[in-house]
Amino acid sequence: MTKAEKKVYIDYNATTPLRPEVKAAMIQDFEIYGNASSMHASGRLARNRVEQARNKVGSLIGAKDETIIFTSGGSEANNMVFHTMRLLAEKPESLNRNEFIISAIEHPCVLKSALNLKNYGFKVNIIPVDEDGKVDTDELKKALNDKTLFVSVMAANNEIGVLQEIKKIASLVKEAGAFMHTDAVQAAGKMHINVHDWGVDYLTLSAHKIYGPKGVGALYAKKGAFLFPLIHGGHQEDGLRAGTYNNSGIFGFGTAAEMAAAELNDYIKTISSMRDRLRLGIEKNIPNVRINGHQKEILPNTLNVSFPGAEGEAILLSMDMQGIEASTGSACASGSLEPSHVLMAIGLRPELAHGSIRFSLGWGITEEDIDYIIKILPPVIARLRAMSTLSF
Amino acid sequence: MTKAEKKVYIDYNATTPLRPEVKAAMIQDFEIYGNASSMHASGRLARNRVEQARNKVGSLIGAKDETIIFTSGGSEANNMVFHTMRLLAEKPESLNRNEFIISAIEHPCVLKSALNLKNYGFKVNIIPVDEDGKVDTDELKKALNDKTLFVSVMAANNEIGVLQEIKKIASLVKEAGAFMHTDAVQAAGKMHINVHDWGVDYLTLSAHKIYGPKGVGALYAKKGAFLFPLIHGGHQEDGLRAGTYNNSGIFGFGTAAEMAAAELNDYIKTISSMRDRLRLGIEKNIPNVRINGHQKEILPNTLNVSFPGAEGEAILLSMDMQGIEASTGSACASGSLEPSHVLMAIGLRPELAHGSIRFSLGWGITEEDIDYIIKILPPVIARLRAMSTLSF
Repeated sequence: MTKAEKKVYIDYNATTPLRPEVKAAMIQDFEIYGNASSMHASGRLARNRVEQARNKVGSLIGAKDETIIFTSGGSEANNMVFHTMRLLAEKPESLNRNEFIISAIEHPCVLKSALNLKNYGFKVNIIPVDEDGKVDTDELKKALNDKTLFVSVMAANNEIGVLQEIKKIASLVKEAGAFMHTDAVQAAGKMHINVHDWGVDYLTLSAHKIYGPKGVGALYAKKGAFLFPLIHGGHQEDGLRAGTYNNSGIFGFGTAAEMAAAELNDYIKTISSMRDRLRLGIEKNIPNVRINGHQKEILPNTLNVSFPGAEGEAILLSMDMQGIEASTGSACASGSLEPSHVLMAIGLRPELAHGSIRFSLGWGITEEDIDYIIKILPPVIARLRAMSTLSF
Repeated sequence: MTKAEKKVYIDYNATTPLRPEVKAAMIQDFEIYGNASSMHASGRLARNRVEQARNKVGSLIGAKDETIIFTSGGSEANNMVFHTMRLLAEKPESLNRNEFIISAIEHPCVLKSALNLKNYGFKVNIIPVDEDGKVDTDELKKALNDKTLFVSVMAANNEIGVLQEIKKIASLVKEAGAFMHTDAVQAAGKMHINVHDWGVDYLTLSAHKIYGPKGVGALYAKKGAFLFPLIHGGHQEDGLRAGTYNNSGIFGFGTAAEMAAAELNDYIKTISSMRDRLRLGIEKNIPNVRINGHQKEILPNTLNVSFPGAEGEAILLSMDMQGIEASTGSACASGSLEPSHVLMAIGLRPELAHGSIRFSLGWGITEEDIDYIIKILPPVIARLRAMSTLSF
């Protein structure tokens, strides 16, 4: 592998580096090693720091004194809410509702949690999105009925960055008497979130997408919302999530959430201007590209581009050799030979979906980095297109 | 609260401090922020470090090239194996076995996972232990039958440190055609473990009990053993455990496991001699105490003592004010008003169970620390006994 001129990590939707303040908070926490469930001073101190973090995480989404369950990440949080709903659906006498609805572009952990419900005999409706990636609310209305128990629609998509109108969707869902969940793992720290304004019952967060540690996430639940444990055991989280608290991870999450809230406006302005610079540079220097997803209602940091005639993994590899780290889609789906279900859902042909790259920006990316990509990428695409036997 | 003369943390079964080498490994890992599922160089580096850790964790228990699933801790690992077994039991056509057996002194996460199976209509046999805390193998033999699917017996108890004869138990279980699991969270790093010698199908580990980070654990599964995901989503861990890898946590776990294996003999010798010094000091200086659990077949670091006429939480509080941090039992059960189910299972009356303290030692404890406890504790017990209205 050639030694690259420089390194540009532009895969922040996969994961973010720890910010220095989070590192410092975690390293400080390494010294406070009590079990947060222990009665003694070390235990109480550890517990106190968990509660500080809980408040900070709640503040990021406008939740005060409500349920924030710390989990091992977004996947566990999403699984927990689906598990809760399955148990509710299995008790038809209690609610007499047992149908589920998700969008076609959910993250694999929501998609597979929903498909798993089919193994239990439940009906799962997967509603389509339009060519911009927006959930078709007419289809949602048609799918909602008095048997609908639960609807899960992500706030912002991980691959194409498209935002959904969660407030409007939640209002339709509540009107139909069902519970509303949104996976806000990609939205958090990149747009304003207020659970009350949105009107959701449940919301999922992950620390490592907002410059916090991997292995920590949270599930928000509205006051009084149903919750059943996925992990049984100790009395942690009021018996809803057993297991010794991941203190330093949780404390790092709190710090990351606090900083994300404080810097949100600056983030949106800075990062979207850098993203637009990348988009313009690509459009200007590479012929025949397609920008995927809605043109405006999109995360400030995400740019998904199809390069007809070039293969995504080959582009990725060529960029990687020049130090540019991007992705073809969800890291959680990488290694799969299937074309992205998100790009297929917005109507891309498989060969075009296979020729798509996700650039996701974040703090640390400079104009110089963007210009480096704009320099490296055009000859890469030209070379791959010249080699390609596919016609577009 | 009075300023204590010194601080002695002696609650290592609740959690351990990070060892300096683990801290250093984790801090180093903080700089390697790729998502281990990403294809680019940062992702491949992160993934490589996950696999290094997997080998080290496997080595600690004699497992080479077998399944080690990284989880968010021991609780999740235990829940995952019970979840797997529930799904097997629900398919009676496949094995035609649906009965479960656990011991009476399992950790709350095994106990509650087992009790949860009753909600699904399955039979769960809880077999008793003798007054030393050893599983009654005659009762086990009686309970085993051709409907038994799964037996879970912990290798070493968290409260009283008693070791079970896992090899013998596993052989009875295998003879009956059932699957054998052992929760080795407390045993790991404190005794020699070899999954093949023991003959278990599944084994649970946790990092934070062996000077590694909180929020990381592992489930070992024998080659070909059934495993179904508790957390659905991405393709991580061959689709068996979704969620972005907790890289720094996993790498820290690997370092902790490697060091635990290397220092095991030294640990056993050093720590048990310190524990015996504490035991002798207590027996010599405090009248009428009872040492709980087997006198010999016990973890080298654990000492569980009943002080008739004194109340456990009051002892804890008085010690805490003097800087000594111990526990009344499992941290995962603290806050509960119920007497310890472990101490009840070995035949203690509730008032005696309530008057019991677990001292659990570890690296860092000095003879000076032990002597400090032996100095502080006798007047504490004498004062509480004088105040007590209970007669013993």
